[in-house]
Amino acid sequence: MQTEISNFNFYNPTEIVFGKNRIPELDRLVPKNKKVLILYGGGSVVRFGTLDKVKEALPNRTIGEFGGIEANPTYETLMKAVELVKAENYEFLLAVGGGSVIDGTKFIAAGAIFDGDPIDIFGAGIGKGLPVTKSLPFGTVLTLPATGSEMNNGAVVTFVEKKAKLSFGSPFSFPKFSILEPELTYTLPTRQLANGVIDSFVHIMEQYLTYPVGGMVQDRFSEGLLQTLIEIGPKVIDEKNHDYNLRANFMWTATNALNRILAPGVPQDWASHSLGHEITALYHIDHARTLAIVLPSLMEIRQHEKREKLIQYAERVWHITDATEDEKIQLAISKTRAFFEQLGAPTHFKEYDLGEEVVEPLVAQLEKHQLTAISERRDQTLEISRRIYLNAL
Amino acid sequence: MQTEISNFNFYNPTEIVFGKNRIPELDRLVPKNKKVLILYGGGSVVRFGTLDKVKEALPNRTIGEFGGIEANPTYETLMKAVELVKAENYEFLLAVGGGSVIDGTKFIAAGAIFDGDPIDIFGAGIGKGLPVTKSLPFGTVLTLPATGSEMNNGAVVTFVEKKAKLSFGSPFSFPKFSILEPELTYTLPTRQLANGVIDSFVHIMEQYLTYPVGGMVQDRFSEGLLQTLIEIGPKVIDEKNHDYNLRANFMWTATNALNRILAPGVPQDWASHSLGHEITALYHIDHARTLAIVLPSLMEIRQHEKREKLIQYAERVWHITDATEDEKIQLAISKTRAFFEQLGAPTHFKEYDLGEEVVEPLVAQLEKHQLTAISERRDQTLEISRRIYLNAL
Repeated sequence: MQTEISNFNFYNPTEIVFGKNRIPELDRLVPKNKKVLILYGGGSVVRFGTLDKVKEALPNRTIGEFGGIEANPTYETLMKAVELVKAENYEFLLAVGGGSVIDGTKFIAAGAIFDGDPIDIFGAGIGKGLPVTKSLPFGTVLTLPATGSEMNNGAVVTFVEKKAKLSFGSPFSFPKFSILEPELTYTLPTRQLANGVIDSFVHIMEQYLTYPVGGMVQDRFSEGLLQTLIEIGPKVIDEKNHDYNLRANFMWTATNALNRILAPGVPQDWASHSLGHEITALYHIDHARTLAIVLPSLMEIRQHEKREKLIQYAERVWHITDATEDEKIQLAISKTRAFFEQLGAPTHFKEYDLGEEVVEPLVAQLEKHQLTAISERRDQTLEISRRIYLNAL
Repeated sequence: MQTEISNFNFYNPTEIVFGKNRIPELDRLVPKNKKVLILYGGGSVVRFGTLDKVKEALPNRTIGEFGGIEANPTYETLMKAVELVKAENYEFLLAVGGGSVIDGTKFIAAGAIFDGDPIDIFGAGIGKGLPVTKSLPFGTVLTLPATGSEMNNGAVVTFVEKKAKLSFGSPFSFPKFSILEPELTYTLPTRQLANGVIDSFVHIMEQYLTYPVGGMVQDRFSEGLLQTLIEIGPKVIDEKNHDYNLRANFMWTATNALNRILAPGVPQDWASHSLGHEITALYHIDHARTLAIVLPSLMEIRQHEKREKLIQYAERVWHITDATEDEKIQLAISKTRAFFEQLGAPTHFKEYDLGEEVVEPLVAQLEKHQLTAISERRDQTLEISRRIYLNAL
């Protein structure tokens, strides 16, 4: 087990273009004389005029469109875009949407010029897990703060038939730029705003709630972002509250939650995501809402292994000081649970009318995806994951 | 005056290679088949074997050396390197040293392929202030945490005859990579360690102690780094304390203090640096030690303009809660002063045997360098700067 800050590389070349009315700068940001494919999801970017603004900002270019990238983007859909890019020789991709569209675009950009079958970009029994060594360049216009995909090099793709959510990443998969206009969040409904807050919160926790190695910068940055989400979360989910700074802070927090600035040299967990992905794959609950089910239960079941960091979390994030260590841990967990509930996300399966029948199928999924030794110490066995699911019923 | 988080671009493509025994990776990081010029300062990188380790890590390459880049690197010295690079057609530069060597290398890399006279890279009455539009690629091996130059695109150069310290920056002036080995700090004397702590501290303050615009991520990150320096500073300056994490936290804090992650969308001051640079230029006091003279005095003189942020600083960085607002401000200032003194840096001119005779020459220097309307509101006149110098006697 690591006892010091470990060696790390930090590299993040994405240019962030943040603020009001930045979409017109696409003309500068997107290379001229390139065939550009704009990728988006459902109809909201059409309905709210974002797509029109994007196209207006790109005069005198050959532009194509590929819509219909779903939440939890599927390999099947994305491969249609890969074929389109190849057939029409698109040279630059522009994702307009949230994490799903951006993740999908990362795969399309890599898959379109991959040497071999793009399925082999994925491992875990689906493909050969080959490295991505090149990618078409792409940029993003972010409409939904949540995943941090706009400033990192990772992506998650869903395989419908195989009921799997699998990730890949490469040094070639960073967006060239990402436009972050907080005002684009003004059209989001409460549920998506809440999902964004929860997803960001758990991203931070996966990089923070492990065991202490003395990474003071990493810990202070994580605690600052967690405090920010706790402070603004209840206001952010008011879809009618169009306070600019509120949404700007939300957007920039979500980006920093997963641009790796929290992670260098410290252990990471990601077990909540692993357990949550299987819930989405089998029971189609929103990604963030699965995390709200898993994390509080995981904190309870794993409180011994995460004891030191849980106490630190209680003291530094929730400012719980006048209590015993055990009380601090219990209070921190219950406050986390209450925070998710306050955001409208249930923390138990029963509130989705799901019961004990879900546990064995979920555990079987974990086993199928070789997630039998996860968490920061690789000591979260299937049995422990089973107890976490059971504890969340 | 800005009342919200303003529009910003954030871009930082430098690859950080952090930890133990990373110098051998230079073989991967430095392009092969390029003529490489290694730049360094005084003899310490020779004496402690760092230069040998660097050269060993670069087999089968044509390598040259340019030593003697001084603290506060001079234009005159750097132009000799520019001529050498041109004459010998060096294609990649490798800075081995602290902020002075890295700053110098940034200028050499830009100056060697500048269209025109490199003096025109500077403004402020010295040159024409023309933009840098290209640069030779360069990397760094950092030996002294302090300036953040290893992960930003700015540099300060000293003009001896003209008694001026002038800066430049460009999007082309980021290091391609920087190797950060905390163990390289084990040979540093107390005074240089203290200078690094103070320099980093004031870099953060220049981006934090302005007026509030509600940038929560930026403020929490700044407060986290300030707290870290307050916590570790007194231990860091013990040159015999070779605790790895202590030095790792110091190094990573110093880098983050000026890689712009604290700055996006919030006001910045930099008046302490402006006033400090003139002290170095006229009286040859170490850069960091001039900041220890200027900042506490500036906080006192400018406490009305910086009132809200001073209270926030008192509460969130020094945890002063049980006091009136005015008491909080006074306590925060006196604690800042005590922190610098504890690090061995005097906060008054008199401790350098300098008196009132310094004030008018310093003010004249500010005037000559067109620093007549500085700070976050551009409202720090020469008269206010004079009062700050007088208050620091």
